[in-house]
Amino acid sequence: MRLHVVNPNTTRAMTDKIALAARAIAGTGTEIVASQPEFGPVSIEGYYDEAFAVPGMLMALREADSQGVDGHIIACFDDTGLDAARSVARAPVIGIGEAAFHMATLVASRFSVVTTLALSIVPIEHNLMRYGLASRCARVRAAGVPVLALEQRNAEACGRISDEIRRAIAEDQAEAIVLGCAGMADLAGELSAEHGLPVIDGVAAAVGLMESLVRLGLRTSKLGAWRTPPVKPYAGIFSDFAVG
Amino acid sequence: MRLHVVNPNTTRAMTDKIALAARAIAGTGTEIVASQPEFGPVSIEGYYDEAFAVPGMLMALREADSQGVDGHIIACFDDTGLDAARSVARAPVIGIGEAAFHMATLVASRFSVVTTLALSIVPIEHNLMRYGLASRCARVRAAGVPVLALEQRNAEACGRISDEIRRAIAEDQAEAIVLGCAGMADLAGELSAEHGLPVIDGVAAAVGLMESLVRLGLRTSKLGAWRTPPVKPYAGIFSDFAVG
Amino acid sequence: MRLHVVNPNTTRAMTDKIALAARAIAGTGTEIVASQPEFGPVSIEGYYDEAFAVPGMLMALREADSQGVDGHIIACFDDTGLDAARSVARAPVIGIGEAAFHMATLVASRFSVVTTLALSIVPIEHNLMRYGLASRCARVRAAGVPVLALEQRNAEACGRISDEIRRAIAEDQAEAIVLGCAGMADLAGELSAEHGLPVIDGVAAAVGLMESLVRLGLRTSKLGAWRTPPVKPYAGIFSDFAVG
Amino acid sequence: MRLHVVNPNTTRAMTDKIALAARAIAGTGTEIVASQPEFGPVSIEGYYDEAFAVPGMLMALREADSQGVDGHIIACFDDTGLDAARSVARAPVIGIGEAAFHMATLVASRFSVVTTLALSIVPIEHNLMRYGLASRCARVRAAGVPVLALEQRNAEACGRISDEIRRAIAEDQAEAIVLGCAGMADLAGELSAEHGLPVIDGVAAAVGLMESLVRLGLRTSKLGAWRTPPVKPYAGIFSDFAVG
Amino acid sequence: MRLHVVNPNTTRAMTDKIALAARAIAGTGTEIVASQPEFGPVSIEGYYDEAFAVPGMLMALREADSQGVDGHIIACFDDTGLDAARSVARAPVIGIGEAAFHMATLVASRFSVVTTLALSIVPIEHNLMRYGLASRCARVRAAGVPVLALEQRNAEACGRISDEIRRAIAEDQAEAIVLGCAGMADLAGELSAEHGLPVIDGVAAAVGLMESLVRLGLRTSKLGAWRTPPVKPYAGIFSDFAVG
Amino acid sequence: MRLHVVNPNTTRAMTDKIALAARAIAGTGTEIVASQPEFGPVSIEGYYDEAFAVPGMLMALREADSQGVDGHIIACFDDTGLDAARSVARAPVIGIGEAAFHMATLVASRFSVVTTLALSIVPIEHNLMRYGLASRCARVRAAGVPVLALEQRNAEACGRISDEIRRAIAEDQAEAIVLGCAGMADLAGELSAEHGLPVIDGVAAAVGLMESLVRLGLRTSKLGAWRTPPVKPYAGIFSDFAVG
Repeated sequence: MRLHVVNPNTTRAMTDKIALAARAIAGTGTEIVASQPEFGPVSIEGYYDEAFAVPGMLMALREADSQGVDGHIIACFDDTGLDAARSVARAPVIGIGEAAFHMATLVASRFSVVTTLALSIVPIEHNLMRYGLASRCARVRAAGVPVLALEQRNAEACGRISDEIRRAIAEDQAEAIVLGCAGMADLAGELSAEHGLPVIDGVAAAVGLMESLVRLGLRTSKLGAWRTPPVKPYAGIFSDFAVG
Repeated sequence: MRLHVVNPNTTRAMTDKIALAARAIAGTGTEIVASQPEFGPVSIEGYYDEAFAVPGMLMALREADSQGVDGHIIACFDDTGLDAARSVARAPVIGIGEAAFHMATLVASRFSVVTTLALSIVPIEHNLMRYGLASRCARVRAAGVPVLALEQRNAEACGRISDEIRRAIAEDQAEAIVLGCAGMADLAGELSAEHGLPVIDGVAAAVGLMESLVRLGLRTSKLGAWRTPPVKPYAGIFSDFAVG
Repeated sequence: MRLHVVNPNTTRAMTDKIALAARAIAGTGTEIVASQPEFGPVSIEGYYDEAFAVPGMLMALREADSQGVDGHIIACFDDTGLDAARSVARAPVIGIGEAAFHMATLVASRFSVVTTLALSIVPIEHNLMRYGLASRCARVRAAGVPVLALEQRNAEACGRISDEIRRAIAEDQAEAIVLGCAGMADLAGELSAEHGLPVIDGVAAAVGLMESLVRLGLRTSKLGAWRTPPVKPYAGIFSDFAVG
Repeated sequence: MRLHVVNPNTTRAMTDKIALAARAIAGTGTEIVASQPEFGPVSIEGYYDEAFAVPGMLMALREADSQGVDGHIIACFDDTGLDAARSVARAPVIGIGEAAFHMATLVASRFSVVTTLALSIVPIEHNLMRYGLASRCARVRAAGVPVLALEQRNAEACGRISDEIRRAIAEDQAEAIVLGCAGMADLAGELSAEHGLPVIDGVAAAVGLMESLVRLGLRTSKLGAWRTPPVKPYAGIFSDFAVG
Repeated sequence: MRLHVVNPNTTRAMTDKIALAARAIAGTGTEIVASQPEFGPVSIEGYYDEAFAVPGMLMALREADSQGVDGHIIACFDDTGLDAARSVARAPVIGIGEAAFHMATLVASRFSVVTTLALSIVPIEHNLMRYGLASRCARVRAAGVPVLALEQRNAEACGRISDEIRRAIAEDQAEAIVLGCAGMADLAGELSAEHGLPVIDGVAAAVGLMESLVRLGLRTSKLGAWRTPPVKPYAGIFSDFAVG
Repeated sequence: MRLHVVNPNTTRAMTDKIALAARAIAGTGTEIVASQPEFGPVSIEGYYDEAFAVPGMLMALREADSQGVDGHIIACFDDTGLDAARSVARAPVIGIGEAAFHMATLVASRFSVVTTLALSIVPIEHNLMRYGLASRCARVRAAGVPVLALEQRNAEACGRISDEIRRAIAEDQAEAIVLGCAGMADLAGELSAEHGLPVIDGVAAAVGLMESLVRLGLRTSKLGAWRTPPVKPYAGIFSDFAVG
């Protein structure tokens, strides 16, 4: 099968890193294609960046969809644009945030999330509420680590994440940790060994879940909120982006 | 005071109608300026349209904000782009959906929402959940009425809305009705008289709430999810839309 | 329009102070009339006092209602007697507690309440639960400040409130503060400036909301819990207080 | 032990009937004393009546309390004045509504309430929410039966209650029925036999629970919301009702 | 009446101690018979032990049931096997955990649980969620005390429980304490006196509640989840344990 | 990898059918071994059967675990014994009920469950509550079909299931259907085609999820409720079943 991983920001280096993580976990017979938008923010920090990341991400997704992939993975922990993607794609779509949450509940009765910046706490909490899994998450925590520091595997950044995990175990009675940023993918194994509990990376989780969905032949239901958007004109710079 | 009402779709006629409704309720001394995006869908039906409506709406909002308005009202019942707008605007921002929900709770212990199409039910339910008011809403109902029919005050469309209100009273024990579409603004008075219960239009509710916020000097908190977005480059067609 | 603010305790000085706060925020064209019960406790601290405050408050409210006011505001943060008031008044009724909670959600994704005494924490939590807004409130806190100290603008009392706000920001990640006592009305501006976040006083919030309700022509629904009480005899000292 | 049952309305005949029901279930060695307020409404239908029932009920309760009873039962299904009663009484206090809910959960995973009039639905729902038992109640239903008809064991009234129970079993999957009015006490056995499921009367449930509380030596906690009210003057007709 | 108390583990000494506690609280005319399984774990610590405790407990319960007792009490704080017991017993069944929770809500608006080991926290939380009482419980705490230490009334163990109660009052604003282990029954009075708040033991609570259920003639509803199990063969060592 | 599927009842034919369904979906390189208990009920209908199914199921699971499998799947829709299994197994464990629920949320914003008998509705609702996914499930429905009829692919039974799905779409606004019985596995494809929405079978869902867990190297956390049971003696017929 062929899975499409879309990085919703325009930074090619991040796309490459994510694709690597996806390929590392993919089953034999699974091909990973990766892309990023042609326009939009170089990174997504907060709601304003997100609004400008989604249109380009949807374009990248529609292009891959028309070329016949079996599933899409949105590789941003906020699950940016997930609803719109499900409405417009033929193939099923999973966000790395929701993937990590679901996997965590299978190995822990209670988990905590460790993300990069305080700015991301509320959006993650809202997603947990919508997905229905808020009662399984003890707390969403921010390590105070900028994404860039993660890119460089900065020792101080890694230390802060490790400290926050320690606090989650002691204060939240967390039994597992969800890493709240695509850029932390390569830290999961090490942190799990260090702290003696499951540490879950969303990219790996999403690849596994999507392979299952595809093998089960499950696609997005078109009876409810994610039905195909009605045809209509789009004005101005978006005139080519309308459906139909 | 000067309030800015932004219609997130590109249909000028709808902007004019909304502005009229806003001016009808505004206090003396309140000036209403209205705008719509320069690019994007002609109407918003579902998550895909929403994704392409938000960038242009945010641009319209930033322009009005820089010209010194005292508050912004997003005139789409889904409260499209509300989080991003709060992050980037200097002045406070209210969505017409949330405004109607809050007002309804002050005159009814339980209300139902009557919106246009089934497609909108889930997004409205999600908003109610986030706002914390889901327990006050008995049910979100769709009258099966396309927005266009509303524009023309089509008799059949109005009849369907009235029928749905009747069902809400009988089946949901609804004590008030929230009209789930900016295009229904002019029906509130009539329907309230017909059914003998409060019928709430979001545009009017939002103008009232915003006048209060402005007079109280309250602005969006910058300590949490809505802090000002960090400065960063945006690529491609969005290169001019970055903050800073 | 003419709004009636009722202070549910029998202390005239407090009524005057509340009326002052209400007039300071009221729009041009809004007249504020204020009253307090002729009988009952001099202040309301806990459920027992509340039970003896409500009958006199309802009498004051019915008298003003019969004289033709457009809306009533119950100026006690516990929203004392709100349900009974809505059942019996012709004009709409708002409590200052609920008013403050609704306003807070428009400028903060999460707020904390700072009230006077620990005795008030549970009643406020119950109101938040009923209104549906419990999920938006991080924590209800008591500053350990007696109401009297507030009346005198006691420096130590103000210091304790400020300390509690500091803790709410640090420990609860509160993005806004609701002041949980009518007697704190005059502190909101100062505390907002000191702590750099919205600080909301219920009296001001209620005046704004009521002006909106009146302008929208919205009145309490009579289809549910707040329908007009059935006519019946009342025995003993309450014989004149029956409806009809 | 000596238990005090207080009927919060001023109708002596109802007090007698309730006392009879209480004595029928009380253990040997349990004495039942019953009282009603000296002033207030002849029956309680809705929030306004409730407000005028509570002061007289509290007086009756304080008098019995000072004479040395071991526990108080408030015999109105709305649990009228329960919080205030707990604050001021030395002995523990139970409402018949909460008693019935707790008992129902011990014999049924899901129950429905059948009360008299639609007016009572919302107050009962709010109590269930506060007590924490809302998730165990499938639905609160009104049989459309006036309290007076119950007093006379009117055949039509009994038929309506029975019909409503039938609907609760079929539509709500109710496994037990809570009778939502003190005046239905004598119907429980018959309705249980007719419908083949537990039918619970609050008066009987409260007597049982209170006997347990007394034997366990448990009294209302004074650490939280129900602490003894602070001493203070009460003005006017309530001047004798102040604590201390 | 005759009540059957079943200790779900095979340690006879514990059965004797529990029977003693039950008899101490039982009313005159109530006979307590006690039993324990013939096979299974000597104590129950966690889900694995529980799985092997339930079959023997159900056998002991069926035997007592066939001999004509009026009610069963399952004397393990986890309410081990409660659902299966309700399905198979003719007489009503109560668990000591649920009994304690219900009693606590009648004397405190918010309680905390103090149990033995951290292993038990999640199962107790799940029970609270199912019973609907999670919102009334501030926190489930473990004192880090092995059950054996309790059997011997070890001074250090008692000290740890007392310390944990102190923390519950200070940190959770707990107004009452539920003791989360049948083995703590004899400590309730002393701890209540020491800390000045209600301390509730489940064995005593369950005896009181069961006496009430029996006197009210209430039995487990057979309309829902607890209907009598269908007749069917059981294989192997359980062949004699099938119903019918 | 090698996955162990355990059928918790003692009917070998059902084990074979489940193994077939599991092998049909398993990836290349995944070996499926299947087992059932040596003692216990021939089918599981209700809580009593469940109690006698778990010990034998745990023995089968421990045996497979000691022989080195990579994951266990409990093939009963009630997720019978899941907590005990997680406590005692070295390899991760998934129940087919939870697997189906998680998968459903990835393709539908709202799903309904269609199970065999009314007896199973409450246990499934409780699982949804514990897993945190209750808000995603519109309704748990029973088709009134005995398990045996499913075994024989009885036409009437299939018709009833199909009718219930039709009602779920019309009345619950369900966007996907979860089949609530391992015996319905072979119907999923057909029913999905007939009704035009995703229909999810738990066996297939669990195999996919377990392959992902294994490839990610995730195992049950031992920090919380699922820690390894402490060593202790077991009496009587269970003496060989103790841990350690």
